[in-house]
Amino acid sequence: MNKPFRKTLAAEQIARFVAIVGERHAVTDPAEQEAFLVEPRGLYHGHTPLVLRPGSTDEVAAILTLASALGVPVVPQGGNTGLVGGQIPFAGEILLSLKRLDRIRDIDPASNTMTCEAGVVLQTAQTAAAAVDRLFPLSLGAEGSCTIGGNLSTNAGGTAALAYGVARDLVLGLEVVLPDGRIWHGLNKLKKDNTGYELKHLFMGAEGTLGVITAAVLKLFPAPKSVETAFVGLSSPEAALALLGLVQERAGGNATSFELLARICIEFAVEHGIGMRDPLASIHPWYVLVELSSGGRTGLRDVMEETLALGIERGLVTDAVMAESLEHRNAFWRLREFVSDAQRYEGGSIKQDVSVPVAAVPDFIRAATEAAERVVPGCRPVPFGHLGDGNIHFNVSQPVGADKAAYLARWDDMSDAVFAEVLARGGSISAEHGIGVMKRDYLPRVKDPVALDLMRTLKAVLDPKSILNPGKVV
Amino acid sequence: MNKPFRKTLAAEQIARFVAIVGERHAVTDPAEQEAFLVEPRGLYHGHTPLVLRPGSTDEVAAILTLASALGVPVVPQGGNTGLVGGQIPFAGEILLSLKRLDRIRDIDPASNTMTCEAGVVLQTAQTAAAAVDRLFPLSLGAEGSCTIGGNLSTNAGGTAALAYGVARDLVLGLEVVLPDGRIWHGLNKLKKDNTGYELKHLFMGAEGTLGVITAAVLKLFPAPKSVETAFVGLSSPEAALALLGLVQERAGGNATSFELLARICIEFAVEHGIGMRDPLASIHPWYVLVELSSGGRTGLRDVMEETLALGIERGLVTDAVMAESLEHRNAFWRLREFVSDAQRYEGGSIKQDVSVPVAAVPDFIRAATEAAERVVPGCRPVPFGHLGDGNIHFNVSQPVGADKAAYLARWDDMSDAVFAEVLARGGSISAEHGIGVMKRDYLPRVKDPVALDLMRTLKAVLDPKSILNPGKVV
Repeated sequence: MNKPFRKTLAAEQIARFVAIVGERHAVTDPAEQEAFLVEPRGLYHGHTPLVLRPGSTDEVAAILTLASALGVPVVPQGGNTGLVGGQIPFAGEILLSLKRLDRIRDIDPASNTMTCEAGVVLQTAQTAAAAVDRLFPLSLGAEGSCTIGGNLSTNAGGTAALAYGVARDLVLGLEVVLPDGRIWHGLNKLKKDNTGYELKHLFMGAEGTLGVITAAVLKLFPAPKSVETAFVGLSSPEAALALLGLVQERAGGNATSFELLARICIEFAVEHGIGMRDPLASIHPWYVLVELSSGGRTGLRDVMEETLALGIERGLVTDAVMAESLEHRNAFWRLREFVSDAQRYEGGSIKQDVSVPVAAVPDFIRAATEAAERVVPGCRPVPFGHLGDGNIHFNVSQPVGADKAAYLARWDDMSDAVFAEVLARGGSISAEHGIGVMKRDYLPRVKDPVALDLMRTLKAVLDPKSILNPGKVV
Repeated sequence: MNKPFRKTLAAEQIARFVAIVGERHAVTDPAEQEAFLVEPRGLYHGHTPLVLRPGSTDEVAAILTLASALGVPVVPQGGNTGLVGGQIPFAGEILLSLKRLDRIRDIDPASNTMTCEAGVVLQTAQTAAAAVDRLFPLSLGAEGSCTIGGNLSTNAGGTAALAYGVARDLVLGLEVVLPDGRIWHGLNKLKKDNTGYELKHLFMGAEGTLGVITAAVLKLFPAPKSVETAFVGLSSPEAALALLGLVQERAGGNATSFELLARICIEFAVEHGIGMRDPLASIHPWYVLVELSSGGRTGLRDVMEETLALGIERGLVTDAVMAESLEHRNAFWRLREFVSDAQRYEGGSIKQDVSVPVAAVPDFIRAATEAAERVVPGCRPVPFGHLGDGNIHFNVSQPVGADKAAYLARWDDMSDAVFAEVLARGGSISAEHGIGVMKRDYLPRVKDPVALDLMRTLKAVLDPKSILNPGKVV
């Protein structure tokens, strides 16, 4: 799976790296390294002679300067929550943890910006924004432990992308250490800057293969003063798509989440979650969790009520309930966030994070469900996701009572079948999670050959010694 | 100013290029070429042996394949409305006009996307979106003649960037012909796609130096059902900044325009415009044109009224009038759009399009005004622009009665003085208009050296023969 690491680090070389960060921040003990080498699901396990925990951008630069001089590869890591193995050193690379770069350097509410170092935990950034009556909208399941640097390097998505965009859309400026140790000082707070090529998007979503993001100027938004959340029962993804159109027409940019869930998602969550309840009194084949947010204090409930009433009138909505309290709203979201975890209790799950054009989602779900059934008869698709972004987590749980290992052995066949339906609709085989090692070998099969060639060209010219995260993405 | 073009095109070579598009679409007559060689203000004048007007992406690819084989440079051009000379062949390059690529290939209201070829006029794209009850929000003075390809290649800004972002933010996918003639088929409709490096942002804002954009998938938005527009009188840019905060807090994403104008802008426009009137009964040192838009049909007028009332209460707003009709609203916008043209009647104008962090705008305007006065005593700064984007057009009209040529001869000194104040605040010397040839020689002085080196590296690797728009940007 990975290129073998060409040479073992000599003790003298290790000492030179350790000297940069100080002994206290260099981890060589295997037991202490473990937290950096296994990701939460235990799917990937790496090994390294050395975990380095620099405390400043200059230390990161010194590490990459030395690594470049010695030809020693380095794997950057944030909160170690990535799902495709991008943050794991499989071939004995040095592990570069950015977690000590955890300062919020600046908050500027008048400019609506916040400058965070790479190691700031997403939730910490959210909280700091809230403290000045602003919103940093990026929101995802791992927000309590993932970091800004990781979020940007993987271009994280999440539940607020409908209104606010994905991670890369939330960035004005970047500070990046290049593979040769040079620092690009691009931390501007500018919404408009047409002085040459747009460099920041090269590094975001590159999974640490082109440079190490050490800090970023993030966009802030007015803190919402009112939020309305509804759980809606529907007959089909087609009805959900039509409702999405209605919601966007009536609420525009105030429509901040639109999450689709198949009935089985609710069943799994209610069955295995603590204190989780069916959100509606009756049972529906499909559900949508809709959220509207507004800077105004009034009027939003009317918009939600009118939109849902119109949905019922047009035969799109079978039943709906609006959250009557913050607690009620949180219960809706806990249910939604627990779906993926709940699958664990149902045996093996083959998970896909894909996207198609929004209008193609219903047809995709139907076709992918049929395709999965052909691969493993009796398997149980558990599709859910961000309908407004065309992003579906097309997870498939094993048949009831099947052998887990035998089921998981069909991972590639299942992926092939699902990806075929994605590609037939002009979709993406990785909407949010990236490529890492998990999907690296798929890339040549699904990517436009000119695009792939451009990617390889960029990697070769920006990281000619292949110092940064070798064997990932390209 | 420009590198000399290395060799003259032989008749045989011209014939090969002409054969690609057909004689009808190759322009060699100097009189017919004129429209492609002079830009609207007459500031730049180019020359070319050949204007090529391809009718398809394949023809563009064939042209660049041949140009690459022969080592013949090419300047791509859209609507020829650029303000920094990026679209002009100064050294006898072939001019590649994209205007015949003017098909709207697809409109998909359910996915909220529209696929336009490069030569589609911006206003045509806006109209096509409106026909399916959608909004394509990019909006600027030249919209009647500028093209989508030019808008994206220069990353156009305009008056709706506050809520919807700049041109690059409105793009999902691109089709690009590379300098060697290969076509990158990147026309996806996906809001989330994390399969490798983000290539599209490399080509947008690159002013045709890295590739030729031939088509794009554009984002559409729900058509606004209500729009409220107000002209506001204020005492200072500080008051305008505070009002911006208030408007964003109350209206959030519904705040779609927030245009700042100094009193002199109104004076010039009223003096020289046909049928233009002072928007308010009394005279104020500063003005703001505020616009709110919403997908809902009701409630927006209340939001505007309440926000303005609060602005008066807090001492930010001295006077305000809300548009009472579409005609009234259009009069507001005509006034705003006419400011730059009105300067023509006041003699020479040295124009700057700059940005600073939003919070720094008031201080920047004060400092730049003082700096301009030091360069040319008696000069008349005419600052206006998109306050919400930190983007100020810091234009300076000559002193009353001064010699125009003598004044314009101070262009570089004036630029230096204004740019110094921009850079002192972490700003950009080109917010919207790009670099072209006008600001190319400034770039090394203002750009982070690592960024500049990265730009040169990208240019060298993507266009090794320097076929595309040589001498522009880098």
